[in-house]
Amino acid sequence: MFEDFEAYITAVTPLSKDELQLMRSLARVKKLRRRQLLLQEGEVCRYKIFVLKGLLRNYRLKDDGTEVILRFAPENSWNFDHESYNNQTPSKNNIDALEDSEVVLWLRDDFEMLLASIPIMKEYSDRIKATSFDAIQERILMNISATSEEKYQAFVTAFPEILRRVPLHMVASYLGVSRETLSRIRHAQVNPTKNNGI
Amino acid sequence: MFEDFEAYITAVTPLSKDELQLMRSLARVKKLRRRQLLLQEGEVCRYKIFVLKGLLRNYRLKDDGTEVILRFAPENSWNFDHESYNNQTPSKNNIDALEDSEVVLWLRDDFEMLLASIPIMKEYSDRIKATSFDAIQERILMNISATSEEKYQAFVTAFPEILRRVPLHMVASYLGVSRETLSRIRHAQVNPTKNNGI
Repeated sequence: MFEDFEAYITAVTPLSKDELQLMRSLARVKKLRRRQLLLQEGEVCRYKIFVLKGLLRNYRLKDDGTEVILRFAPENSWNFDHESYNNQTPSKNNIDALEDSEVVLWLRDDFEMLLASIPIMKEYSDRIKATSFDAIQERILMNISATSEEKYQAFVTAFPEILRRVPLHMVASYLGVSRETLSRIRHAQVNPTKNNGI
Repeated sequence: MFEDFEAYITAVTPLSKDELQLMRSLARVKKLRRRQLLLQEGEVCRYKIFVLKGLLRNYRLKDDGTEVILRFAPENSWNFDHESYNNQTPSKNNIDALEDSEVVLWLRDDFEMLLASIPIMKEYSDRIKATSFDAIQERILMNISATSEEKYQAFVTAFPEILRRVPLHMVASYLGVSRETLSRIRHAQVNPTKNNGI
């Protein structure tokens, strides 16, 4: 529950007891069942989300009905829809739970107040933002310049845990590689000598 | 020269004469010849850059010698290497001029001081950051889910000016589409009825 958040946050930034108490007083812990939506396209993203347990997914539903996966957010990560949260406009994306999950939610106004009144929380938040920006730049670089094999290998290295927890077609969607190509790559890695006739 | 920056910035955010004067006192205007490097891989990105005239390009040089284009920055846009500037670490990327260009430079410490002492400049900067983040998210969505035709069409719609100013192989690199595929798409658009034998 909220203690798990306190354990996480105090390990990464030194909040005082009073500051933790202030964060707790405005927080709401929510359980999600697998496949439950936390944000639906067209709704305004009202909350800053911290994942205590489980795994969330941010995705866009295309006109043809396919789901495009923008992000996986496992335990101990922050989540929200950036554009909708910042501008309080209807979200283009969805957020759902891929496993039974538990999250902490803060209303946007409350979270902004927390950032304004707890300077080290603001610093921490800015640091996360900057790191996300760099990561997303690197993802673009991979997207536009790497082979499908390289994309898959980078995912395996960066997110071994997530690979074990989600179906392959979701990894394919996240990487922008077809399911068939990804199956072929995995098959070739499991059976590296097969094509040599050995 | 600097007046062009003043004209731009006062149109987007209401800076006072004193604030403009403060910005000017710390700025340095620099001319770049076509193909001149402004930041080289391995160097620390010391400056926040505003493009007055011309066109800059941010790119990564891969081990095999290919250039991967992360960004085009035409006149009236801001530029820098995000990761290197923020962390003052060696840059993984390069920035060069694709045309004879003119830029305004502020040293990082000076620019941070400007943001700290001019609240509306900080607000404007935060707004640009948020918009960039949203744009980069949409670029990822295109990268992983759009066809090559859709990627090209989105580029044509968003950046018609840049399309006219850079060689096609650079557009291909930015989109992560092969040069051959892009030539085929353009050819099909110019001669849409050719395959019908009309």
